[in-house]
Amino acid sequence: MKRTKKFILPETEIPTQWYNIVAEMKNKPLPMINPQTNEPLKAEDLFPLFAEELAKQELNDKDTWIDIPDEVREKYKIYRPTPLVRAYELEKALDTPAHIYFKNESVSPVGSHKLNSALAQAYYNKIEGVTNLTTETGAGQWGTALAFASKTFGLELAVYMVKISYEQKPYRRSLMQTWGAQVIASPSMSTKAGRKILTENPTYQGSLGTAISEAIELAMQTPKCKYALGSVLNHVALHQTVIGLEAEKQMEMADEYPDIVIGCFGGGSNFSGISFPFLRHNLKGETHTRFIAAEPSSCPKLTRGRFQYDFGDEAGYTPLIPMYTLHHKFAPANIHAGGLRYHGAGSIVSQLHKDNLIEAVDVNQLDTFKAGIQFARAEGIIPAPESNHAIAVAIHEALKAKEEGVKKTILFNLSGHGLLDMSAYDQYLAGDLSNHELKDEELNKYFEKES
Amino acid sequence: MKRTKKFILPETEIPTQWYNIVAEMKNKPLPMINPQTNEPLKAEDLFPLFAEELAKQELNDKDTWIDIPDEVREKYKIYRPTPLVRAYELEKALDTPAHIYFKNESVSPVGSHKLNSALAQAYYNKIEGVTNLTTETGAGQWGTALAFASKTFGLELAVYMVKISYEQKPYRRSLMQTWGAQVIASPSMSTKAGRKILTENPTYQGSLGTAISEAIELAMQTPKCKYALGSVLNHVALHQTVIGLEAEKQMEMADEYPDIVIGCFGGGSNFSGISFPFLRHNLKGETHTRFIAAEPSSCPKLTRGRFQYDFGDEAGYTPLIPMYTLHHKFAPANIHAGGLRYHGAGSIVSQLHKDNLIEAVDVNQLDTFKAGIQFARAEGIIPAPESNHAIAVAIHEALKAKEEGVKKTILFNLSGHGLLDMSAYDQYLAGDLSNHELKDEELNKYFEKES
Repeated sequence: MKRTKKFILPETEIPTQWYNIVAEMKNKPLPMINPQTNEPLKAEDLFPLFAEELAKQELNDKDTWIDIPDEVREKYKIYRPTPLVRAYELEKALDTPAHIYFKNESVSPVGSHKLNSALAQAYYNKIEGVTNLTTETGAGQWGTALAFASKTFGLELAVYMVKISYEQKPYRRSLMQTWGAQVIASPSMSTKAGRKILTENPTYQGSLGTAISEAIELAMQTPKCKYALGSVLNHVALHQTVIGLEAEKQMEMADEYPDIVIGCFGGGSNFSGISFPFLRHNLKGETHTRFIAAEPSSCPKLTRGRFQYDFGDEAGYTPLIPMYTLHHKFAPANIHAGGLRYHGAGSIVSQLHKDNLIEAVDVNQLDTFKAGIQFARAEGIIPAPESNHAIAVAIHEALKAKEEGVKKTILFNLSGHGLLDMSAYDQYLAGDLSNHELKDEELNKYFEKES
Repeated sequence: MKRTKKFILPETEIPTQWYNIVAEMKNKPLPMINPQTNEPLKAEDLFPLFAEELAKQELNDKDTWIDIPDEVREKYKIYRPTPLVRAYELEKALDTPAHIYFKNESVSPVGSHKLNSALAQAYYNKIEGVTNLTTETGAGQWGTALAFASKTFGLELAVYMVKISYEQKPYRRSLMQTWGAQVIASPSMSTKAGRKILTENPTYQGSLGTAISEAIELAMQTPKCKYALGSVLNHVALHQTVIGLEAEKQMEMADEYPDIVIGCFGGGSNFSGISFPFLRHNLKGETHTRFIAAEPSSCPKLTRGRFQYDFGDEAGYTPLIPMYTLHHKFAPANIHAGGLRYHGAGSIVSQLHKDNLIEAVDVNQLDTFKAGIQFARAEGIIPAPESNHAIAVAIHEALKAKEEGVKKTILFNLSGHGLLDMSAYDQYLAGDLSNHELKDEELNKYFEKES
């Protein structure tokens, strides 16, 4: 009965620096391309869109460690360090010799890891004199994070929320409004990009790609207004490394080291956050940890997408990014894991995947909810539908360890809670959810149109 | 920038004993009365309804400290010790010299302090061979807590959920179902008590009093089935003292002692939990802390109720309890703080209030939401509508300290989060909420019928 369930660090152990994996990669990601000039992107090209410091972080491939401003660390104290938890009850339910740990990012007041980057982005914009931000959100995890971050640093925020999520998850909209943000269902008639897609397809339910186009367009047309993105980009992955940096210390407290690290995968923010600090030891040849990105089988960019230059948004406003992609015009099925409904993987993760330094698996929707409910009944926490993808893979690996009779140490990131996704659980329990396996025709459709 | 925001205790500091204030009260609460015999209640009278150990705790006025079973402490580790947080940002927003602390019980995976007693109750029932539990729930905080507690100790659970909350807060219903509980809107046709009230008043929206009657009736008619209550009773207040016991140690870490301790008030569970461990120093004359119970002005049992014997439920199945009461037939207005919609105060709190050892104030609904949103925008956490009552009083006291130019140390209990109450915030922001001041005629109606 003396066993430790939660490994807790004091506030003084909140990391003082973010880890920039690009500086240590042998094969760096290919450069992003400015589509106007067809030249490699320069930081200055991003200044109209992003805070300058964020643009510089985006292209920084030299500095391994980047200081976290005191003001951001001070805000991190609201919820960081987050607990590392040993999932004893889940282990018992699975009857596995594996030791399962999860990093509990769901304790963030906005409900997910997204606040790690939102606070940093709001801070840099604020000190550079920006007054207004725009952004997109899928399930609403990023939008709620940036809503609170904007409020706490005194910025105004407009959020384009993917229409299907706006309808499926009305309480995340309420959250953003409670923190003072303006929320618009996307596609909307308020932008050229939105009007175009609505004219072509009036019943279109939206995608992250379209919402990004709308948010960028609004930012470009508004003075003292910049845009903020919650995933995919290098600076977002950078900010999220606080997850893995803390987890590394906490695994030490538990006197273990992970054989397998798992994160769900949309554009890469939480997977990068939990993985990169551990992956650096693989890069140096010190360890042989496996890293698994868990993506939805309805939106499998890493497992089935193509590695090529593509736009980050539906309308083609962003630079060209070297990525595993399903094509920027691809409209994913309406799964409840709205945060994973994105067509591409960030350029760092894409390069790592290309070099076989990480793995990816896809999981179908019903299996993710089955895993999430098993986790909830064992550990008490209702996971976000996104996080259920990581849990499903963790359970799969724990059962494999049982079959093989080997003790494995498994670490996954519980990126967020699902308290605002209960309608999805309702539907699952009522037998009303289904899988959305992506057909090959659908996968190739947009690429073929182009070629 | 070196200031501490969260005061965190290690798991080894989870209390090993609950504090039983009755043993140290000079004026003990009057005995409960068995309405069949008109004699003071004996523990045996409660055995048909409650686990025997809980019945004994209910009547224990001798032992100041009662051991917490290891199995319960082990489950407490899922979320305990909870953080004590200094509300720096709220202090700044109020520009007050007061230091404001809150004990953050919202980090419980079920979203509130209710799990502190649910785990204990499920445990004792389990080891006594009970297989099924029944209970009532208002807003659903207690029901969700007992749903997870039942699941984790391997019990089946049926929850009667007050109909207005069943409709206002469908996601708390989903939560209970996700943890495997059966949920019935109350009043229902499944019990005599429910049928009677539905026959008299087919559109009745329910009350905690009625839901308790239904849950008791089902338990009494089912073999190996007992009933569990989430507030009001002495053993519930006992279990909740882990809140204050931890907070006491954490205030020491902060090198402060509270001048004022505040909890919202429904039946008394969270108010007792945060208050009693500090109040014991008042009882010994060591301190002069003020204790304020914050109740809704639509259901003001302590501020406007009568002190007399009354039933704990609408149908009159419970023992007679010496309490401040609005009458067991009283149907409170449909405020969103469903957990505070109860007609009576527990017998310990009632006696303390009668002896002027605690204070009570009532707050109207609009003021509670205004306070909750101010707190959310400052501290990031969306509070439960119930907790907003405590926040409103804390803000009021902090502003009074500012006016008077004195430094006060204020501690309140953040009993739960409001992530499943977002429709209430929506309505508030849209201007669709109103106050429900209780009229004198309404207050006296039931007492006059009787006399």
